[in-house]
Amino acid sequence: MKPYVLGIDIGGTNTVFGIVDARGNVIASSSIKTAKHPKIEDYVEELYTEVMRLIEANDATDKVGGIGVGAPNGNYYTGRIEYAPNLIWEGVIPLQKMLQDRFNLPVAITNDANAAAMGEMTYGAARGMKDFIMITLGTGVGSGIVANGQMVYGHDGLAGELGHMIVKRNNGRLCGCGRAGCLEAYCSATGVARTAREFLEIRQEPSLLRNIPIESITSKDVYDAAIQGDKLAKDVFDYTGTILGEAFADMMVFSSPQAFIIFGGLAKSGDLLLKPLKEAMDKNMLNCFKGKAKVLLSELKEADAAVLGASALAWEAKMIEN
Amino acid sequence: MKPYVLGIDIGGTNTVFGIVDARGNVIASSSIKTAKHPKIEDYVEELYTEVMRLIEANDATDKVGGIGVGAPNGNYYTGRIEYAPNLIWEGVIPLQKMLQDRFNLPVAITNDANAAAMGEMTYGAARGMKDFIMITLGTGVGSGIVANGQMVYGHDGLAGELGHMIVKRNNGRLCGCGRAGCLEAYCSATGVARTAREFLEIRQEPSLLRNIPIESITSKDVYDAAIQGDKLAKDVFDYTGTILGEAFADMMVFSSPQAFIIFGGLAKSGDLLLKPLKEAMDKNMLNCFKGKAKVLLSELKEADAAVLGASALAWEAKMIEN
Repeated sequence: MKPYVLGIDIGGTNTVFGIVDARGNVIASSSIKTAKHPKIEDYVEELYTEVMRLIEANDATDKVGGIGVGAPNGNYYTGRIEYAPNLIWEGVIPLQKMLQDRFNLPVAITNDANAAAMGEMTYGAARGMKDFIMITLGTGVGSGIVANGQMVYGHDGLAGELGHMIVKRNNGRLCGCGRAGCLEAYCSATGVARTAREFLEIRQEPSLLRNIPIESITSKDVYDAAIQGDKLAKDVFDYTGTILGEAFADMMVFSSPQAFIIFGGLAKSGDLLLKPLKEAMDKNMLNCFKGKAKVLLSELKEADAAVLGASALAWEAKMIEN
Repeated sequence: MKPYVLGIDIGGTNTVFGIVDARGNVIASSSIKTAKHPKIEDYVEELYTEVMRLIEANDATDKVGGIGVGAPNGNYYTGRIEYAPNLIWEGVIPLQKMLQDRFNLPVAITNDANAAAMGEMTYGAARGMKDFIMITLGTGVGSGIVANGQMVYGHDGLAGELGHMIVKRNNGRLCGCGRAGCLEAYCSATGVARTAREFLEIRQEPSLLRNIPIESITSKDVYDAAIQGDKLAKDVFDYTGTILGEAFADMMVFSSPQAFIIFGGLAKSGDLLLKPLKEAMDKNMLNCFKGKAKVLLSELKEADAAVLGASALAWEAKMIEN
């Protein structure tokens, strides 16, 4: 078996790629601009050139056994990127086949959150776990579910969209998906900022956040105010953590995970988020599950996590027939 | 491989068992009273005697390869019945080991709803499916989740308690589990009767159900009134189906099943339940899943379903070490 794999994380702006060993060390990494090439063929060609340059510079020629790709709307079953709203290429991109043809290596593709879960299982906080749920709290809320040691992809490869569980059935916030009341509308970084704006409008009390133009408040601003003791800002985290904890209790009855693993910007809020989260989770938990599931933070370095997650797929990637 | 397996369904009142072939034919079946023996050892002894009698009477000696058991709170991982509220034996019963020792055959145990899912996958509506969700609508709401062709048991063997998803976060009905707002409190047979009583109290309009003492109304009464065109009774089914459809849309984002398979008394309500269910499911579905999951009724004969479900486990049962 070859000692390395390649992890490629495709984002709307940058594509980051790295050579990874079996222990989750990123030997070397580099990046290209995703949106530079309106034609996917040109993108693949630049990616190939830059990857080969990295491989040669690191004396890794013939040592890379496979390629794993994390991409928005990446579908593990079809090997395609399907209608990704934040990528320049429209429609369906058969990226698994294109990369396999160019690199002559086995390629596996999945979406960002599933890749994060694979990374955590292979190298991070979920090593040795067969049942866990990965929740990524970023601009949106993503998720990857592992049951019986396997990713839950569903019949169409699209399972694990827990950011779109409905958590407010009545009068819920509009979500980017076009529906209302989704978890993502409350517990993403964007959701935290929305909650802050809502609280500032409804309440009269003073708050450090009133020094910031209301439409430009970010979750970082709310965090900064909260650690300075701002009551309203702390209440925003209580509200967010409570909704997330209630949602975790509902996820528990589905797959009874050993742990929930949190990743992404909001995960850095620490106890501001985790304390109300764990309280709400415990309070809302079905008796037979009480006290069983841990809430853990990702153990992967943020700078490496996306590449590591993508690379985790590569260890079991297989060549597909053309 | 031996041509038959034994399925044992343990209920609070009766234990039904049958000899089953690989196509899901129940060759012969019989039953004993579950609660007759306060001591589990006596129960196992009577069960053994009666099962052997059935096997001999049907010329099946040495033709049975394994035993599958569906039992309330049956845990597949531990092989035990754990704190089943409706069984006479308290605490933890190591039934897998007890039956293996007595029958000298491999034994597998799970709970009723998981057994139903296994039965449907092995012999029924879910044959060939790798991702589906079984929902049993009886006195309670049970569920069995299959992902990647495997039962989702969770880290502790207790996964798949979808009857205890919270569907009404505020002011929800008290549930038998001690919490409030669970799916089971609305969409079980008991839930349907509760909804009818609630509607009769809140509304003023005439209804056939007003001829029945309010506390003795059952879901069957509501069904009978609805098929006679009773508006209030039909509204009860609309309400029930809508909540179930909303819940199915939420389950979809978890495991993206190919189908939801419904079993149990309420499943017989047909379009009274299915029409509002499918409408609510479609209306609440995340775009990428719209129109994908079927809603199917169980294909197993009700009289045989429990034994068939339990028997489905037996085909892959293995001897455990003592």
